[in-house]
Amino acid sequence: MYRSRLGTDLSNITLDYVSSIDDDSQIALYDIIGSQAHTVMLLENKIITKNDAKKILSSLENLKNEKFDSSSGAEDIHELIESLVIKKSGMASGGKMHTARSRNDQVVLDIRMKIRDDINIICNCLLDTIESLVSVSKNHQKTIIPFYTHLQQAQAGLFSHYLLAQADVLSRDFQRLFDTFERINQSPLGAGPVGGTSITIDRHSTAKMLGFDSVVENSLDATSTRDFVAEYVAMVSILMTNLSRISEDFIIWSTSEFSFIELSDEFTSPSSVMPQKKNPDILELTRGKTAEIIGNLTAILTTVKGLASGYGRDLQQIKSSIWSTSKISISALLIIKSIILTMKVNEKQMKKVTESSNLIALDIAEKLVQEGVPFRVTHKIAGVLVQLAHNSKKPISKLTTPEIKKSVEGTKVDTKLVSEIISNTSVISSLKDRKSFGSSGYDEQKRMISDRTEKINCWRLEMSERENKIKSSLNDLQKSIDDIL
Amino acid sequence: MYRSRLGTDLSNITLDYVSSIDDDSQIALYDIIGSQAHTVMLLENKIITKNDAKKILSSLENLKNEKFDSSSGAEDIHELIESLVIKKSGMASGGKMHTARSRNDQVVLDIRMKIRDDINIICNCLLDTIESLVSVSKNHQKTIIPFYTHLQQAQAGLFSHYLLAQADVLSRDFQRLFDTFERINQSPLGAGPVGGTSITIDRHSTAKMLGFDSVVENSLDATSTRDFVAEYVAMVSILMTNLSRISEDFIIWSTSEFSFIELSDEFTSPSSVMPQKKNPDILELTRGKTAEIIGNLTAILTTVKGLASGYGRDLQQIKSSIWSTSKISISALLIIKSIILTMKVNEKQMKKVTESSNLIALDIAEKLVQEGVPFRVTHKIAGVLVQLAHNSKKPISKLTTPEIKKSVEGTKVDTKLVSEIISNTSVISSLKDRKSFGSSGYDEQKRMISDRTEKINCWRLEMSERENKIKSSLNDLQKSIDDIL
Amino acid sequence: MYRSRLGTDLSNITLDYVSSIDDDSQIALYDIIGSQAHTVMLLENKIITKNDAKKILSSLENLKNEKFDSSSGAEDIHELIESLVIKKSGMASGGKMHTARSRNDQVVLDIRMKIRDDINIICNCLLDTIESLVSVSKNHQKTIIPFYTHLQQAQAGLFSHYLLAQADVLSRDFQRLFDTFERINQSPLGAGPVGGTSITIDRHSTAKMLGFDSVVENSLDATSTRDFVAEYVAMVSILMTNLSRISEDFIIWSTSEFSFIELSDEFTSPSSVMPQKKNPDILELTRGKTAEIIGNLTAILTTVKGLASGYGRDLQQIKSSIWSTSKISISALLIIKSIILTMKVNEKQMKKVTESSNLIALDIAEKLVQEGVPFRVTHKIAGVLVQLAHNSKKPISKLTTPEIKKSVEGTKVDTKLVSEIISNTSVISSLKDRKSFGSSGYDEQKRMISDRTEKINCWRLEMSERENKIKSSLNDLQKSIDDIL
Amino acid sequence: MYRSRLGTDLSNITLDYVSSIDDDSQIALYDIIGSQAHTVMLLENKIITKNDAKKILSSLENLKNEKFDSSSGAEDIHELIESLVIKKSGMASGGKMHTARSRNDQVVLDIRMKIRDDINIICNCLLDTIESLVSVSKNHQKTIIPFYTHLQQAQAGLFSHYLLAQADVLSRDFQRLFDTFERINQSPLGAGPVGGTSITIDRHSTAKMLGFDSVVENSLDATSTRDFVAEYVAMVSILMTNLSRISEDFIIWSTSEFSFIELSDEFTSPSSVMPQKKNPDILELTRGKTAEIIGNLTAILTTVKGLASGYGRDLQQIKSSIWSTSKISISALLIIKSIILTMKVNEKQMKKVTESSNLIALDIAEKLVQEGVPFRVTHKIAGVLVQLAHNSKKPISKLTTPEIKKSVEGTKVDTKLVSEIISNTSVISSLKDRKSFGSSGYDEQKRMISDRTEKINCWRLEMSERENKIKSSLNDLQKSIDDIL
Repeated sequence: MYRSRLGTDLSNITLDYVSSIDDDSQIALYDIIGSQAHTVMLLENKIITKNDAKKILSSLENLKNEKFDSSSGAEDIHELIESLVIKKSGMASGGKMHTARSRNDQVVLDIRMKIRDDINIICNCLLDTIESLVSVSKNHQKTIIPFYTHLQQAQAGLFSHYLLAQADVLSRDFQRLFDTFERINQSPLGAGPVGGTSITIDRHSTAKMLGFDSVVENSLDATSTRDFVAEYVAMVSILMTNLSRISEDFIIWSTSEFSFIELSDEFTSPSSVMPQKKNPDILELTRGKTAEIIGNLTAILTTVKGLASGYGRDLQQIKSSIWSTSKISISALLIIKSIILTMKVNEKQMKKVTESSNLIALDIAEKLVQEGVPFRVTHKIAGVLVQLAHNSKKPISKLTTPEIKKSVEGTKVDTKLVSEIISNTSVISSLKDRKSFGSSGYDEQKRMISDRTEKINCWRLEMSERENKIKSSLNDLQKSIDDIL
Repeated sequence: MYRSRLGTDLSNITLDYVSSIDDDSQIALYDIIGSQAHTVMLLENKIITKNDAKKILSSLENLKNEKFDSSSGAEDIHELIESLVIKKSGMASGGKMHTARSRNDQVVLDIRMKIRDDINIICNCLLDTIESLVSVSKNHQKTIIPFYTHLQQAQAGLFSHYLLAQADVLSRDFQRLFDTFERINQSPLGAGPVGGTSITIDRHSTAKMLGFDSVVENSLDATSTRDFVAEYVAMVSILMTNLSRISEDFIIWSTSEFSFIELSDEFTSPSSVMPQKKNPDILELTRGKTAEIIGNLTAILTTVKGLASGYGRDLQQIKSSIWSTSKISISALLIIKSIILTMKVNEKQMKKVTESSNLIALDIAEKLVQEGVPFRVTHKIAGVLVQLAHNSKKPISKLTTPEIKKSVEGTKVDTKLVSEIISNTSVISSLKDRKSFGSSGYDEQKRMISDRTEKINCWRLEMSERENKIKSSLNDLQKSIDDIL
Repeated sequence: MYRSRLGTDLSNITLDYVSSIDDDSQIALYDIIGSQAHTVMLLENKIITKNDAKKILSSLENLKNEKFDSSSGAEDIHELIESLVIKKSGMASGGKMHTARSRNDQVVLDIRMKIRDDINIICNCLLDTIESLVSVSKNHQKTIIPFYTHLQQAQAGLFSHYLLAQADVLSRDFQRLFDTFERINQSPLGAGPVGGTSITIDRHSTAKMLGFDSVVENSLDATSTRDFVAEYVAMVSILMTNLSRISEDFIIWSTSEFSFIELSDEFTSPSSVMPQKKNPDILELTRGKTAEIIGNLTAILTTVKGLASGYGRDLQQIKSSIWSTSKISISALLIIKSIILTMKVNEKQMKKVTESSNLIALDIAEKLVQEGVPFRVTHKIAGVLVQLAHNSKKPISKLTTPEIKKSVEGTKVDTKLVSEIISNTSVISSLKDRKSFGSSGYDEQKRMISDRTEKINCWRLEMSERENKIKSSLNDLQKSIDDIL
Repeated sequence: MYRSRLGTDLSNITLDYVSSIDDDSQIALYDIIGSQAHTVMLLENKIITKNDAKKILSSLENLKNEKFDSSSGAEDIHELIESLVIKKSGMASGGKMHTARSRNDQVVLDIRMKIRDDINIICNCLLDTIESLVSVSKNHQKTIIPFYTHLQQAQAGLFSHYLLAQADVLSRDFQRLFDTFERINQSPLGAGPVGGTSITIDRHSTAKMLGFDSVVENSLDATSTRDFVAEYVAMVSILMTNLSRISEDFIIWSTSEFSFIELSDEFTSPSSVMPQKKNPDILELTRGKTAEIIGNLTAILTTVKGLASGYGRDLQQIKSSIWSTSKISISALLIIKSIILTMKVNEKQMKKVTESSNLIALDIAEKLVQEGVPFRVTHKIAGVLVQLAHNSKKPISKLTTPEIKKSVEGTKVDTKLVSEIISNTSVISSLKDRKSFGSSGYDEQKRMISDRTEKINCWRLEMSERENKIKSSLNDLQKSIDDIL
């Protein structure tokens, strides 16, 4: 059994072990564009002739539409593309493409271009998701829901407040990735294998052509560090834990026992025998995929931690972790946005649970505070009230005067005052009174929704600017290429 | 054996299991200061009387110098401090300190103040270390060293270039943490248990008194998210992998086989029987502690990933991970800076190894490129030269004309040209010619040193500004307190 | 601020950085006993005199009751104990204690003795917990509960079945750790720094005295590998994820919405204002501590992964991860056992939920299967029945004949047959019919309880044997020492 | 850019997000065989007719050679295979295949069968690698090499001792996986969705047909726990860290500075410009892939940690982690075995370094110990000798009498004695005298080689037995199927 399953001979196993060609399909286009910019720069600096440049650029242009055969026997995409260019344009010209460059600066260039695009996509998806949260929250500014701590009902709140909290969390993810972009969008091209080159290249020129904001200057640094990868995957890991929290909330709220929301059919899996059963598989997968990305981060940090300076082949292994991190997080965002927009909110059930849970106890205590009773005393009174209500299975509002009297025993507080406060307090009044900045009361919702809407618009503008800068650089590069051809 | 070792009764084990009091010594002072700001705000907004405020503030002032007894039986520092305040100032006043606040916003306030300070310390330590790298690099602009890829000699370089690469890496760590600070330095105070309060507090006022830049607005977000912790520990993890890389380099260079550097005695451990043996224990520990911090990050992300919205006690467990992350990274930076400043650099050995390794092969190839020979052809020629030199155990410079002829076989390149280039090429000439931006040639070193020196100064100014802002806020708070007392 | 907090001078920071003395309190006693066995062996093999042995053993005996001062300035416990022995018994004798030994084999000896004891404790705690699960399950062989998949109700079951499932899971944890013990309980003593010694020691003798089953033979292996630590912590990590699952179940079941169980007061934390609120903090902490141990495992694997052969100081750093792993898991087991024994099970609520959920649909389908209808067809019929019941808000048992007719449309199944089956099927009948091996029906419970009870007894015996072997070896050692003194 | 790259519509993205069909190609065959055993059992127990069984089994037999189209739109392989069976054999028969079974027990059956085979393959590969280590060690029982601690030369040793240490380490990996197998090779089949079935199936029969040693009894346990996966991946993680250690050693020994070994060409990558440069890429990849598997383990534990009881879709996500763990470790073992068998050992260089390093100092100290001088005193003397030799740049053997005199100052040791010992001590004599059990002296090598050879043979037998048991069960199953068809 064992022998037969391992029939392939060792050299194939070894090639498969070292090869990154399957992973590299993700960066083939970046590799081609990077090579084009490099070629244009070599021409501009008279390191190669116009004829050389023409041939190389035309070969590369052709390769843009090629599907690369993973069974080519090439170890990686850089080798494969160069060999195809040489095949198409001849050694005399094609053999010059790799002048003043090495695989070590080339691979990190491709990774940076890939992550740069991925960050922009994720940032846009984040804005879409934030926008959908804010938009749904507009419809739920009066939707009462219990808020939980320790998964125990703790305070009455509004569903919009919950949604806006998630929007704020994701806004921080947006900002984190927006900041990380600046450390990604720097060109390592021209750093050579490790120590630079004696050929008079212009690293700023290629950086500009490719839409980079600046250059990773030191050649040793440029070729052998991957802190930018770790930073990117760490930021996405955090983002995923935030999506995982929403998933966890929604899974619990989708149980028959909670019944707060109902997920749209397209995001649940039916059980063949119980069609009313809607398994929240997608949300569970989001939790599972979050764990996977945390595993990716562990793998990357563990790899990087073990290395000495100078490129080491260990670094090849982290590429697939990057691709999967990007793919998963983009899909997860697209799907969660759609889940939010399509789920049914069971407002009645939310309200019923909130009102039947004596959650106004804290409000009663706070009203007593406003009468000058020390907080710790008011809490004891409220505590006794809840206990009495709980024991006699009725709401606080139905407690009798003798019962209320019990609650103030040992304090100087007047029973009448407490009675009056009780009769003036309800979930609705509580949410009216809740006016502290950022609280879950009625008034704050409106203000926060309008503020977040404005913020989203600002961020959209910043994103456009950033994307347009890259797009316009690449357009210019294409024009230069067209001019040469 | 088993029974006896487990003699303590279960309630002690349970208290020990839930208690965070030992970990909390790290935030006791922050808790006191936070409570003072809260009290001043309650007074300002007439929620408590001047008399109440006086008593509370004076009790808190006294507690600043107290050593908290971890065997008090209190579950956490917040409970302990409040109970001591009530004891000192009476229930009538002390019982009001906790008005419009909960442990949930309080603990996250303390953590934010602690991390804020830790980031500033780490940032300053980073600048010190960067400065020491740049300063030592000034003395090594002519110190020749082989640069490695795959731990194999790859290209001649300068030791200053190595040091500057590390400085650039750590500069990114500085920038990362500098950015993270902005997401840390926001006040959650006043968010209540989860949904805010009906008492008319002023959250912006406490934020300002405590030197925060802004407020974490949404009360659910403020109390139950810890993405800022994950971000902080992720950034420090990356920083540590960078220190681990330096450690790895130095450990390898300290072997008898490499003998590139000699660590100062204070940072090595002798073996009792071989006093010339200097074990690089400190550097090994830095590698080991890096792994520990990666473990901390895994623990934090794994914790956060598993949670629903609303504070959960799981979050208590991550506090000790934060403290250890901060402590380790600060010590590691202080020590590595000192190691860099005190190590002996064996310039002779570095140079000898570089010169005996045919590392000029790449330079010969590049000179041929400049004569119009395609890169791929020049690489083959250089390859043959190295192979011939290797086989006949002599340097490339001693190859005979017939040998050189062999290298150009099958190409159109003139043997004479190659001979000439060989005789004009040395490690020294290579480093003179290496002029590409950010390369390890002579010229670039000077430029980079001067540029980095300037940058350090800018960052020092930014740090001062940031620290002074906090310091001045806290001074103002102290003045307010003194005025009230 | 920064300068002042870092006031301590660098040499203190460095000592603190390298010192493991605080962590070492955990192994002080093992170090002493190990040294005693080593000394007795040196005497037996005439490497030291009886007089030397007497002095050393008596010094060590005295140290057994000593509290070691962590501020001694010693880097580790081995150094500290040896220096105290030399101080007490003089260099002429005490200076011989460390003959044919090194810190490298000594530290790993201590760790192995510590983990050996910890495994035995954990195994006993596991048996206690398993026993408590089985014992509680005896009372719940008729307690009906819905079983969940995807947190959605899926099938009717018995609460005993749930408890027995957890018992089975923990039994595998027991077996895993029982197996791991064999790879732990091997003596590395006498392996020297890395390559053994020329002194004619008897490694088997010390191994026997210390209760080891065998010797870690190869000296390089014995001193520099820590796979046994990784294995131990991995096994405990898995155990903790199993406790975390129980915690997660119980947290969800403790919500007001589920209300399946009520935790005993001693294992919940009250909220000051809502005394009926019982926050399941202990269970949340168990989840959080599970994450911490997963972090410990990551740290250990990441450390070990980065090492070359031969002891490296990185390994010191993993000691505290071991101690915390042991301590947490032992406490967690003790507490969870007690939680299980003391929680209140809300049988009425469990039953009510089960009966109101149409969970008999699968049973109806299976009864149709037994009439020869293909499974896929029966599932469709049951599906329609559930859908109809769901839509008309009544139980399946109240469906009318026309409704039932609808369910068989397009199949050859007789409406009457379905009607009959429906009227004969209830949650109770379902649990009577559920007879497949290991299923959650009534009959299987009894069988499984009796089987598990027997197994626990076997394991208890094996544990006693194992512990007695060590105890008796150590008693013999003590007798040898007493004879010499 | 962003819109265009995300052109696919959401339903495709969602299907891709939930689908495991690509991962499932690894278990298609197991799924078919499992379904066959289930079908045979259904027939045996008269739950289906012979005609039904015939049709189902024949359809399944046909599917064995099918290549499953991942674009079928099916969510997973179980669904796909069942639908194909129904298509081929009609609903009346094919619709019965899934009787008394669910996807929840089916998927875990497939995973167990897959891991079972993978463990056997890995165990065989481990034995091959161990055997190659022992076999190469036979040729190096006289090959002198310095042993390192802290990467600093510490003691003279033999290369065979190094190889045997690695063999011993891998033997523990073998034992670990051998033990784990027992917890894997248990059948979950028939556990149903979560609570078993009322149909009178025979779970022991299917278990036997499929070569399982026993049954995972409790249906809740059988369907929703994955501790066996975590255990498997943990064991492989440890194994990989052991391969990573060998890789690290070999990478360092392959540097020009160490030059202890030369890797075979097929396992190195040349640099295009320096053909003598042999980059140890394969070994670096092994380090990197070790990190990846540690990441897999983190992902699995993090996933499992977050779950409540009952199957959750999160668990789907861990499948690809299992497959990659298996594939990587098998390839890594095959390759490292070949690397060991083909590398060139530079015995001269190893010896030269050993002899020039005063590594005999410890032997001199031990000889003094045997003259009754306390260990701590002898260590001081040896220390002074090494220091003197180091300072005067000559070997210890060339020290003058006055110099030796210096070393005994302050002790009662006779200079003559020391002189005599020095002149009688060499690396060769040291390795002759090194006789402690498991030490790196000459005598121990022979003994250990013969012992390990014997052990390998025992293990081979155990493996054959284990594999044959499965093979023979599956053969019997095939015969039953053939009989029915």
